[in-house]
Amino acid sequence: MSLIDGRKTAEIIKNQLKVEIEEWVKSGHKKPHLAAVLVGDNVASRSYIRTKIKSCEEVGMASSFIHFDAQISEDQLLVEIDKLNSNPDIDGFIVQLPVPDHIDEHKIIQRIDPKKDVDGFHPVNLGKMMLGLPALLPATPYGILELLRHHNIETSGKHCVVLGRSNIVGTPVSILLSRKSDVGNCTVTLAHSRTKNLKEITLLADILIVALGIPEFVSPDMIKEDCVIIDVGINRKDDPTRKRGYRLVGDVDYEQVVDKASHITPVPGGVGPMTVTCLILNTFKTVKWNAGAE
Amino acid sequence: MSLIDGRKTAEIIKNQLKVEIEEWVKSGHKKPHLAAVLVGDNVASRSYIRTKIKSCEEVGMASSFIHFDAQISEDQLLVEIDKLNSNPDIDGFIVQLPVPDHIDEHKIIQRIDPKKDVDGFHPVNLGKMMLGLPALLPATPYGILELLRHHNIETSGKHCVVLGRSNIVGTPVSILLSRKSDVGNCTVTLAHSRTKNLKEITLLADILIVALGIPEFVSPDMIKEDCVIIDVGINRKDDPTRKRGYRLVGDVDYEQVVDKASHITPVPGGVGPMTVTCLILNTFKTVKWNAGAE
Repeated sequence: MSLIDGRKTAEIIKNQLKVEIEEWVKSGHKKPHLAAVLVGDNVASRSYIRTKIKSCEEVGMASSFIHFDAQISEDQLLVEIDKLNSNPDIDGFIVQLPVPDHIDEHKIIQRIDPKKDVDGFHPVNLGKMMLGLPALLPATPYGILELLRHHNIETSGKHCVVLGRSNIVGTPVSILLSRKSDVGNCTVTLAHSRTKNLKEITLLADILIVALGIPEFVSPDMIKEDCVIIDVGINRKDDPTRKRGYRLVGDVDYEQVVDKASHITPVPGGVGPMTVTCLILNTFKTVKWNAGAE
Repeated sequence: MSLIDGRKTAEIIKNQLKVEIEEWVKSGHKKPHLAAVLVGDNVASRSYIRTKIKSCEEVGMASSFIHFDAQISEDQLLVEIDKLNSNPDIDGFIVQLPVPDHIDEHKIIQRIDPKKDVDGFHPVNLGKMMLGLPALLPATPYGILELLRHHNIETSGKHCVVLGRSNIVGTPVSILLSRKSDVGNCTVTLAHSRTKNLKEITLLADILIVALGIPEFVSPDMIKEDCVIIDVGINRKDDPTRKRGYRLVGDVDYEQVVDKASHITPVPGGVGPMTVTCLILNTFKTVKWNAGAE
């Protein structure tokens, strides 16, 4: 079994990016600048944004944290998005999800200028991704592709099974891996809560991507010998031996599955660090595109 | 075996549409208006456009045929598209593909106002489709969904295998059938030219959608008993017994497969008539959306 180390891969990418950004700035360009918008006070959201801003610092990018009260109206938030769209100093920005219930998430995402949509959630970016055109890719699927690339895992002609059809992970990664592209050309099966005979399906997988949000769901009897496993889940499991009373587990029963898999991502330290890194990659990508440099 | 009769289904939908459009016009609205743009003189393209215009007449819609010389520049064509975008009398329009080689097809499609993009090829419409949001759906996948709906074919929890990953058929229909929707909730496998062990994959299918462009490719040993087969292929096969020297065949070996399938579309008369009908459905849909009537 070989570990797919997301932390290490993220470090490699960020170190490389740091060098590229240094050169970019040295050659007379302004520092790339990512803004993160938080509405309300979700503790997890704050922590995600902190990680994103820290990553900006690590690679020498500028960042802004923009905070609005949970009571901000949808109209006012749309006005604030327009300001970010037209602010030439901001190269890319994200609105941390979820937003409060009185705000339509889709309306917010569709208002973001697709060129600044570094989360890759705007329909234009998703549509272009589907067409195999240059696009800002959703960060988690992008991170999964980079993990496969950096670990030299052959995808062409392989059967990839994706569990979970979410808009931000399962659906886009299933499309990306089926494209006629470098890390692609897989036969792809997208399975989900309505799938019958799930075990029959997962046993087909040369590459299994799990994004269900069900702790330790995938057991060894569900996978083929030498399967590559990408575990996107991050769940809390009670653990009285830990000081905080829980530990993080994925959607895969890691301990039970690890010896049967050829490659596997740990949780934490697998897909997670790659997601943030790909957000940073997207920001620099859009900077270069808009400068006509790529 | 039960025939999935595309001609009959298209007639039913068009008759219903005719009544709705009559009522729409009677209630004081202008006639819905579809424009079809042809660049150059491809014989097949001309014939497709004729069929589309004829269908407009059948349902009481206005139509325009706009023809440009094959030598028109890309810039000039973009200007013409802008004119159609801003012309309030045109509710929807299509640019018949393929366009001549000196014109970038993607640039043309992306210039069409997504609200008038009744072919459903614009990235915004594809992205919204992916997100399960209201969108103008690509006509052939939309037609396949309507065929399944009109023939009361259960899709939820079924395994649908799609052969072919084209932008206009295979990829979008694979996404649509996996959505959490009325005709959807399938486990979907997207297979293509790089797929290995293809027969193993097709034998999984409860519903098999074939859009490869290879005459009579699917043989009876490749399908499960009582499989539902949707054949999107239209290919010419030499046939000296016919006056014109050929006959049209699908991507499925119809004669050999017909007794094993539970439902099957003929070629011609299956998916083909539905594609044009769904273009007309899209045109009326966008008229109603823009009037705030739906």
